[in-house]
Amino acid sequence: MKLNQITHPNQLHGLSIPQLEEIARQIREKHLQTVSTSGGHLGPGLGVVELTLGLYQTLDLNRDKVIWDVGHQAYPHKLITGRCDRFHTLRQKNGIAGYLKRCESQFDHFGAGHASTSISAALGMALARDMKGENFKVVAVIGDGALTGGMALEAINHAGYLPKTKLLVVLNDNEMSISPNVGALSSHLNQLRFSSPVQLLKQLEEQFEHLSPVGNFLAPELNRIKQGIKRLAVPKVGAVFEELGFTYMGPIDGHNLLELIASFDQAHQQTGPVLVHVATIKGKGYEFAEQERVGYHAQSKFNLATGKAITSSKPKPPSYSKVFGETLTKIAKGNSKVIGITAAMSTGTKLDILQKNLPEQYIDVGIAEQHGVTLAAGLACEGMRPVVAIYSTFLQRAYDQIIHDVCIQNLPVFFCMDRSGVVGADGPTHQGMYDIAYLRCIPNMVLMAPKDEAELQQMLTTGVNYTDGPIAMRYPRGEGQGVPLMSEGWESLPIGKGEILRHGDDVLMVAYGSMVYPALQAAAILNEHGIQATVVNARFAKPLDIDLIVPLAKQIGQVFTLEEGCLMGGFGSAVAEALLEHRVIVPLIRLGVTDKLVEHATPEESLSELGLTPPKIADRILKEFQQQSNLDIKVLQNGSFEQKTRS
Amino acid sequence: MKLNQITHPNQLHGLSIPQLEEIARQIREKHLQTVSTSGGHLGPGLGVVELTLGLYQTLDLNRDKVIWDVGHQAYPHKLITGRCDRFHTLRQKNGIAGYLKRCESQFDHFGAGHASTSISAALGMALARDMKGENFKVVAVIGDGALTGGMALEAINHAGYLPKTKLLVVLNDNEMSISPNVGALSSHLNQLRFSSPVQLLKQLEEQFEHLSPVGNFLAPELNRIKQGIKRLAVPKVGAVFEELGFTYMGPIDGHNLLELIASFDQAHQQTGPVLVHVATIKGKGYEFAEQERVGYHAQSKFNLATGKAITSSKPKPPSYSKVFGETLTKIAKGNSKVIGITAAMSTGTKLDILQKNLPEQYIDVGIAEQHGVTLAAGLACEGMRPVVAIYSTFLQRAYDQIIHDVCIQNLPVFFCMDRSGVVGADGPTHQGMYDIAYLRCIPNMVLMAPKDEAELQQMLTTGVNYTDGPIAMRYPRGEGQGVPLMSEGWESLPIGKGEILRHGDDVLMVAYGSMVYPALQAAAILNEHGIQATVVNARFAKPLDIDLIVPLAKQIGQVFTLEEGCLMGGFGSAVAEALLEHRVIVPLIRLGVTDKLVEHATPEESLSELGLTPPKIADRILKEFQQQSNLDIKVLQNGSFEQKTRS
Repeated sequence: MKLNQITHPNQLHGLSIPQLEEIARQIREKHLQTVSTSGGHLGPGLGVVELTLGLYQTLDLNRDKVIWDVGHQAYPHKLITGRCDRFHTLRQKNGIAGYLKRCESQFDHFGAGHASTSISAALGMALARDMKGENFKVVAVIGDGALTGGMALEAINHAGYLPKTKLLVVLNDNEMSISPNVGALSSHLNQLRFSSPVQLLKQLEEQFEHLSPVGNFLAPELNRIKQGIKRLAVPKVGAVFEELGFTYMGPIDGHNLLELIASFDQAHQQTGPVLVHVATIKGKGYEFAEQERVGYHAQSKFNLATGKAITSSKPKPPSYSKVFGETLTKIAKGNSKVIGITAAMSTGTKLDILQKNLPEQYIDVGIAEQHGVTLAAGLACEGMRPVVAIYSTFLQRAYDQIIHDVCIQNLPVFFCMDRSGVVGADGPTHQGMYDIAYLRCIPNMVLMAPKDEAELQQMLTTGVNYTDGPIAMRYPRGEGQGVPLMSEGWESLPIGKGEILRHGDDVLMVAYGSMVYPALQAAAILNEHGIQATVVNARFAKPLDIDLIVPLAKQIGQVFTLEEGCLMGGFGSAVAEALLEHRVIVPLIRLGVTDKLVEHATPEESLSELGLTPPKIADRILKEFQQQSNLDIKVLQNGSFEQKTRS
Repeated sequence: MKLNQITHPNQLHGLSIPQLEEIARQIREKHLQTVSTSGGHLGPGLGVVELTLGLYQTLDLNRDKVIWDVGHQAYPHKLITGRCDRFHTLRQKNGIAGYLKRCESQFDHFGAGHASTSISAALGMALARDMKGENFKVVAVIGDGALTGGMALEAINHAGYLPKTKLLVVLNDNEMSISPNVGALSSHLNQLRFSSPVQLLKQLEEQFEHLSPVGNFLAPELNRIKQGIKRLAVPKVGAVFEELGFTYMGPIDGHNLLELIASFDQAHQQTGPVLVHVATIKGKGYEFAEQERVGYHAQSKFNLATGKAITSSKPKPPSYSKVFGETLTKIAKGNSKVIGITAAMSTGTKLDILQKNLPEQYIDVGIAEQHGVTLAAGLACEGMRPVVAIYSTFLQRAYDQIIHDVCIQNLPVFFCMDRSGVVGADGPTHQGMYDIAYLRCIPNMVLMAPKDEAELQQMLTTGVNYTDGPIAMRYPRGEGQGVPLMSEGWESLPIGKGEILRHGDDVLMVAYGSMVYPALQAAAILNEHGIQATVVNARFAKPLDIDLIVPLAKQIGQVFTLEEGCLMGGFGSAVAEALLEHRVIVPLIRLGVTDKLVEHATPEESLSELGLTPPKIADRILKEFQQQSNLDIKVLQNGSFEQKTRS
């Protein structure tokens, strides 16, 4: 059977092991072809090809529901649920999404881009099933990395308490999240991986039978030990899960279809919650990925034969992340109190540079943002300078900890939010749109965003030196502006002070972070049309530079704010609030992300759609200015403008 | 020794057991006296008197640090750390706080009002200690309820992975959070409580020695079993914790000082993470509290001799919570798809009414807000109508789940946020100030707030009937407005539509939820001074009733918004944004909670300080109106106004 003939996963039923193995081969081929061409997650999907096929062989996918944690391990699932022919559009605008989406397929029962949600969602569905008196199987597939997230443990704790609620949790144990896992649960799983399989229990019981004729004098104690024999084995085969109410099965070889199918069949016979522990190899079947499991977790375009990334010949400026990692490492070298903290994102945040150079000043808490933030609060209590590097979108996981543990106590924790704003191909679950709004409302918090990578260096210094309370810096995904970097000698910026980058009498543009350069470029376009803009780099969203912005607004009388974040409650609202408080009642137009989800696309496509590219910004301002000033300016399609008259 | 002579906990050193028992008696006496007079947490503190004394006997509190989870169990701690003489001011404005606060005492090392944070904070301090090469003990005291919170499990997972980091976790196991605990971990702890103490391990090892001369033929197997003997005992004495890298000790009788001191001494000898499992009785030493452990978790004023609450003779309107619980139960009776979900807050949210009447439509997930919200998302996927009743402040714990699992997928989950706005004596950790701002910025979310308890009934109906996506309702702590309730026959309100409650040409007051009645009362005061106000009950903060508000603002030209929540990004900002978008450039003053923490006090005191009582609102509007209209009105201290002239 050809892979592209499979439009429904139930077509797998009745296939022989060799036939399934052939499908597996085709899935890997398609997977590799696609990701090497378009970029995407590689290792996770390659590792679960047999797991997916084996599991689906034992399910009726017209009724049964599989919830894939994170979804980046679900490319094989996508390939056998009717999306093979469109798979080449992976992660492209209007194409197949990089994660699961309920609206993309009837087989995507729960979307996810963040980790650790699958057991909660699956348990909700299982409870609903029982309430409705229906009868179908619910399966959550979760990685060992995701299992360390607090909410997954909360879900385990709840599910284990419901012995009558049938639920299968498949633990896809590849010993990694993106980086190798940390944490005691990981060690526990490692022990299990290297222990004997489930048969050990039976063997030990048999051995113990031989001990019985020792004599009666010890009979009660013997009996006691005998009753304990099950528990004797338990620590080797899933003590934690068994103690938490789950039936544990495993470890299973995740690349042996026969074993997988037999185990899943056995698991389906159980009542109540069952955990099947499947040992997989991340990147299985592609030599380079098996060897280099961190690097091949996700990949941009690469050469299949060599495994090498295809880079454009044009040299690019370093990424904000890289400048962050390198600069923080330099700062930390001179200040032993600086501690970098990440939550399983050492490569993405480039905190791995700190890890390599100063391992004593680096902490990876695993997928555990909540713990990471409060751990930082504890470090701050003791006079350390914790720098918490977590993506904007993942910091949402630690929102209460930011409010309750950091801000209420006014502790000097420094949050560095990579991937703020538009993220591109990862789509809605990863967009860093909300951080300005959700952090701005918390007392004691200071918010800043650099206009470029050199200002990031200054702000990093500023944040480390700021000990009056919490402070947060947001910066975008991807490369910087290509400005020269300083190798050292950064000075702190004054808190709450912006700068004027351009003077003009007609409009005031107040831009935040990544929108400063586009604002300048838009101002240049406006200039061509005889409109003079003042451009302010706000630097701080909180406290806002009222002394700078309010008089300018009053004087110029036409204000535009620019931000790469949600408009509701965001930076523009901060400016609006400030003007209202100072009784400056002038027109203010806020440019940013309107109140809807931003789908996956390239960052450029997203920004264009949001009207945040320089031509679109200039276009919008011209239109507004025209309305206000009765200018007659024709806006051309290509983003330039033809000025007809000027009063 | 008299309790009030203890100003430093090290004064306990060298006291004999009978002397400590006498101190314990005095602590209970003072504790009961104070809480019966002023209200506060009762059961948690009474349960840990010996635990506190025993622990402090083994520590040098000039160096060592104890982090109390939640802090409501730390009244005994407060009484022996220099706050005995001021303890009668408990939970009163400018008095002793109901929780721990770093600014209140050098012995309060980490403040908390939310559960499950202590191990993370303590681990942070322990890591900092080791980094700095210092040497002191760090102890986290956490309840068994709080231990089910995901972040506590994340912290256990991290701490257990650091065998060289000395950390003591004291598990205060009273089998309760506020309500009896749920979850598999709880069951595990229950098993431990009824198992033999730690000595079992040694006994079993000795017994096993006798088995050795059985013969050589089984020697290898015997040896294997022998090596497993430790693990044989382990499941009975803390399997989960041992497997997660902790040394487990217990269970210890939490009211036996000798046993406590010996155990803590032994624990301090260990390297690495240790968990001492202490079994305590919530409310210990006060008969009524021991019997009725839910009711006496926290108490308003009560008669010590009878244990009965002292209620004012004046009958009060029912609380919003009670109306919520009763109405939801009625709705759920007619709709089996309605499922009430709480996170260990059944009594506070009054979801216990649903629990009693329709247990099949009720789920308590324990202290696990994250899991609770995603579980609700799973239920919604299956067509159920999950109603998640979580206090505004605790919903912060599930912020990412609201965004990622509910809103991005546009699932119809209904959030009912009790305790929104000012909460009174619980103080900053519990104020429900941020929900409007943190929810408003999320796409697909609908936000509403009722003006009174009858409108709450309507909105509850509205929320249950709304299946287009997520919807949230906020309502305040405490009693309603005393308006008549409907026993049934509620109709859904139109989404995004407000109502005009009063017409006037001079000012427009747009009020949200709990501020509608104060707005009306302020309008009446203004009327006495010749100023006519239009008062709008906005009902919805999102979508805002633009069709109603924008034309009124344009027409009246002077707008005031009123909300019981943070001003940054809140309801007033929503109105400001809407006016700007519709080019209505008019003065707008936003009344609400300014950007600072609201300390503990009575709700009335807090509202007055925030300028949100009717006289203060009227005062503020008069002042503004005066500025704008050149009115000469003298504002009197008592909140009324003397109008001198009117142009």
